[in-house]
Formats: sequence, C-alpha cells, structure tokens
Amino acid sequence: MYKAKAYSVASAASQFASGTITRRETTERDVQIEILFCGICHSDLHTVRDEWHSVMPTTYPCVPGHEIVGRVTKAGTAVTNFKAGDLVGVGCMVDSDHTCPNCHDGLEQFCPGSTFTYNSPDKHLGGVTYGGYSESIVVDERFVLRVPTNLNLAGVAPLLCAGITTYSPIRRWGDIKGKKIGVVGLGGLGHMGVKFARAFGAHVVVFTTSPNKKEDAIRLGAHEVIISTNAAEMKKQAGTFNFILDTIAADHDINAYINMLGRDGNITLVGAPETPLQVSAFALLFGRKSLSGSLIGGIAETQEMLDFCAEHGITSDVEVIPIQKVNEAYERLVKSDVKYRFSIDMASLKTE
Amino acid sequence: MYKAKAYSVASAASQFASGTITRRETTERDVQIEILFCGICHSDLHTVRDEWHSVMPTTYPCVPGHEIVGRVTKAGTAVTNFKAGDLVGVGCMVDSDHTCPNCHDGLEQFCPGSTFTYNSPDKHLGGVTYGGYSESIVVDERFVLRVPTNLNLAGVAPLLCAGITTYSPIRRWGDIKGKKIGVVGLGGLGHMGVKFARAFGAHVVVFTTSPNKKEDAIRLGAHEVIISTNAAEMKKQAGTFNFILDTIAADHDINAYINMLGRDGNITLVGAPETPLQVSAFALLFGRKSLSGSLIGGIAETQEMLDFCAEHGITSDVEVIPIQKVNEAYERLVKSDVKYRFSIDMASLKTE
Repeated sequence: MYKAKAYSVASAASQFASGTITRRETTERDVQIEILFCGICHSDLHTVRDEWHSVMPTTYPCVPGHEIVGRVTKAGTAVTNFKAGDLVGVGCMVDSDHTCPNCHDGLEQFCPGSTFTYNSPDKHLGGVTYGGYSESIVVDERFVLRVPTNLNLAGVAPLLCAGITTYSPIRRWGDIKGKKIGVVGLGGLGHMGVKFARAFGAHVVVFTTSPNKKEDAIRLGAHEVIISTNAAEMKKQAGTFNFILDTIAADHDINAYINMLGRDGNITLVGAPETPLQVSAFALLFGRKSLSGSLIGGIAETQEMLDFCAEHGITSDVEVIPIQKVNEAYERLVKSDVKYRFSIDMASLKTE
Repeated sequence: MYKAKAYSVASAASQFASGTITRRETTERDVQIEILFCGICHSDLHTVRDEWHSVMPTTYPCVPGHEIVGRVTKAGTAVTNFKAGDLVGVGCMVDSDHTCPNCHDGLEQFCPGSTFTYNSPDKHLGGVTYGGYSESIVVDERFVLRVPTNLNLAGVAPLLCAGITTYSPIRRWGDIKGKKIGVVGLGGLGHMGVKFARAFGAHVVVFTTSPNKKEDAIRLGAHEVIISTNAAEMKKQAGTFNFILDTIAADHDINAYINMLGRDGNITLVGAPETPLQVSAFALLFGRKSLSGSLIGGIAETQEMLDFCAEHGITSDVEVIPIQKVNEAYERLVKSDVKYRFSIDMASLKTE
C-alpha cells in the first residue's frame, strides 16, 4: 500500500479538502496510473452531497472522479495490454464479477457485482473505492482503456463518462446517417450527443430552453436549434424525428418530446430525473413510439468510442481548472455555468 | 343508398335502440357484406358514452362495432379479391388516403386520413361512419379481410381488433420462441396475448390481480401465473422477462412491471390508461429497458394474423349474445364480467 494525494469531502455538507488516501500495491493484473486529467461529472456532485442516498448512500470520506486520463507508471507481471508510459483512461467502473451473463456480453455496467470507480466496496483494501481527484490510481487492466495520442487530453477525460453515455445509445439505435436526430439539453452530455450524432451523419437538432445557446449548438455541429418553450417551433417539427437523446436530469415534460417523434421513433433517457416522468400512453400508442433508458456502456464499447473519437477528432469542450478550484467549480456546476465540462489538471495537485 | 337495420345510441346517456341506418350502394371497388357476428370491444363502450371526448368526440346517433365477420353479398365491378359468398372480416378501419408513407408501408392505422369503421367522417355519405351492430356494411375491398373457413365465426370476430392489437406487438418484438414473455391482465386483449405468445413458442407468464383467474390462464396457454399484488411472487421473478405485453387500460404501477424485465427488455402498452403513467427514469436506465406503445395493425398484417389463427386453430373465447342483450352486455363489460369477449350473433337482428 502507498499514500497518494487526493481531494476528498468528509461529509455531505463539507467542502473538498486536500489530504492523502491509501492505494493498493500493483497486483499482477493491475496497472498503476499517474492521473493527468479528471473530468467533473454531475454524478460526482450527487454522490459528494449524498443526493442519491436512497439508492446509493455515500460513504465518507469520499473521493469522486470517474473521467480519468493518465499515464501508466507501473504494470503488473501478468498485464499484457499496457506498459509504463502508455496513455490510458478509466471510466465509471474498475472491476466486475467477470462471470455473469452481462460481463459475458461485454456489458459490465449491468453486472450485479461491478465495482464502481468511487463509493463502491473495495475488494482489495476494504472500505470504498476512491476516484480520480487524486494523483494516482491502481486498476485491473481489464478496466483500463487505451487513450488515443492525437487528442487533447483535458478534453478526452470527459469521454470516459459523458462520452460513452451518449455514444452508446446513439450507436445502438442503428444507422442514423441521414436520419433526423434530436438532442434535448445542451450541457456536458448534450454537447457530446451533438458531436456524435453529427459524426455519424445525422441531421442534428438541439432542443434547448436557452435562446443564447443557439449559436454554440450550431458551432458544436447541430443543423438546427428548437427553442422548446416556443410552441410554434415545436409544433412545426412535431412527428418528424427518428430518434431523440434526452440528456435532461431535471423534471420535464417528456410527452412534448414523444410528440416530436415520427412513427416507430424512440426517445432514450440518459439523464435520470428524481421524480417519475408523466408518460401519456396515448402518445406512445399513436405511432407506436418508445421510451428507453441507457446507462454508460461496456468496456469494449468504451474503447470503440475512444477510437471513434480519435478517428473523428472528437473531444469534450472543457474548462480546465486546477484542483484548488474544485469547490468553486461545484457551485458553478449547479448553475450549469460551464461550457461544457470542467476538467481538472492534476499537475496542480503535485505542486501542493 | 339503402336502409339497413342497426342498433344505435342517440346520446352519451342513452341505451341502445333498434332502428335503421343508411348504407351506400356498392361502388365499383366496394364489397357489400351481410354481417354474421360482431364483437363488443371496450372502445365501443368508450365511444358510445363519449368517454374519449377530448381526443375523439362522439357524433350521434352512434353505431359502434369494429370486430365484424360476415359474408359477401355483392362485389363491385372492379373488385378483384372477393365474390359473393366469401367469408370476410372488417376491423377498425374502412379506408385511408392510400398515398401517405404510412399507407405505403402497410400501416394504414397511422394514416392521417384513415377512416375508422365508426364515428369517423364518411367520405361517401357525409356524416359519420356506422359500425358493425348492423345487418350489413359496405366497405372498400382494400379494407376487407379474408376469413379462414376452418374457425368458429363467433370467435373470429374479436380477432379483427383484440386479435391484431395483441398479435402485432408480439410479432414485431422478434422471435419470442423460448423467450420469457409476460402478459399483464387477462381480459379481451390479454387472453389473446396469451394464445399468440404461446403459439409463437414463448414461455408465457400471466400477471393478474385475481387469483381466481389462475386456472383459466393455464387453460388458455400460460405456463405460469403471477399474482401481481403478491410482492414475494413478483420479487422472485424480477429482472427475468424479455418482453411484457401490458393490456391494462386502467391506471397501474408500470414500474412494477419494468422491474420484471431483464436487460434490454421491453414492455409494450396496448391499453391506454387516461391518466399519465408514472415512469421511473432509473428503472429504464438500469438494464436499458424500454416502454413502447402499439396500436392495432395494418391491413396486410391483419390478414397475416387471420391466416396464423387458421393455421394454429386460434379464436377468441366468446360469449355469444343476441343483439337485444347489448345494453346488459355493456353493464357486464364495465364489471369485466365476460370470458373473454361478447360476440353478437347478428341473426338476432334479422328476426326483429
């Protein structure tokens, strides 16, 4: 075991403070990673503040962070895919049971025995796992991703969660080339949805409540922007969408978007509003539409996404901050005051 | 034009009364049909009582009935598929615009210009269309189905709505052979869902609140019955279903059934509760499940369903009544006091 610098919170009401955590020594299957950048995901904030208490209570101290990019510093004796110096990434999971049907199908995110990158029982050291707001991490090589060398690393970090969360449902829907695809919400998830849908050749339409996001949506790759509070704009394109990616985590009128779908259209949720969605059965029956959910993606699919990003030059739009600004960043995150993801430059932790 | 005997209601508060309606003369594309049996669908009751006023207000007098089986008495000069004496059926639609993308795809039920069998603008005579509680009907041959001669005709009538409504989503889901399929509710729709799912080779499980329906569910083809109010029974099979057909038109806890689905599972609604369903986004995300709607089926698919029924000896379980008992039948329908569909023997109308 060794000590690593990290930022942690001591309780739901606490601010982040600098300190050290314990990491395990590299076992034969492990990769030790020096963390270069870590994105700030909304899940980090929910967990730190114990806002998901009823489903996943938070154990303190808590070190969040599951959008990790770094460089391999050591590889265990049985590690075959990585060596010291390699650029790598770690996303929302660091282990699974490797035996269940979900693991067999490469969908480790649904494994009942999966270990999440933070706030999940730690099989090696006991207690809970600690995430990427730290100078280093040790991860089973099967949960380590190869990071392309041609991309901006600060912008790669958010791909490990925001990227795969939006890539997976778009990819799974089928061939969207030439199809009309909507993206609801233009935040950390939404802006990635726009980039992927555009890269796959779709006609991309952003739904937003903020007229001032219009220009940026177009810059990110959208062909059109609909102001969702404008009934006339909504009505004009009702019934014309093949697929809609809904990234809104707050309560919203889902029927308004179901109504935008054409026959056999699908709307997939990647955000999770706390209150139940009020779904009109009639809205689904007429046009036999469907409403789905999607949750990150498996490891193989995450690698596929990273390779796709390398090929298409896709990264997240980020605001790079030193870790000393993390408390301030959380306050701004609550107000959606970031375009479009904070990425922590971990060099800032070294100099403390 | 000619006069035909029919049972109609004069207002939302009225009982059915015997009388006559006007039918058009057979045009060159039309088939004139002597009606032998007409099923009583819950939609008939909703329409007669103007319970769908906000979406489809009822025009009176109203003659419902869209589960029609009869014999061709006359065929127009351009009719190619039918001749006098043929056994035929008519379902929920009698015409469409024949030009839109939905019609092109054989999905006339989604044609914006479709003419429903009753309470729909009548292109030929003005006013609204009159349904099957009548001694005869005149229908464009493109909306006339060929009825197999090897089946009980009283039990064939409900196939034209209850049959296709349940057949279509099961068929569209994919190959359910060997899959675990749930059917929620054991009424007019549910009992057909059980028969179809069984005929397609699925492992069929009925969800019902009524322990006394258990034996009948097994007789109809179910392998298992889960009493949905029994939390232990529900929990035991949670996460194990590939597909669930939800036939409940009353408000119910949809998340309880989403929870029964395995990964990538789908629940399809064919009933339409008036109040919005309260859908948990988390329930859809974990296991990337989906909730869909389905609405009857196209004409070609309805013919396919009838042919499938002929091959597998499938009909609806019916209680045959004379039309003079229709008011009483409606009262019993409200109480779900029928196994599982009323089928009106139209010979009873001739003798009035």
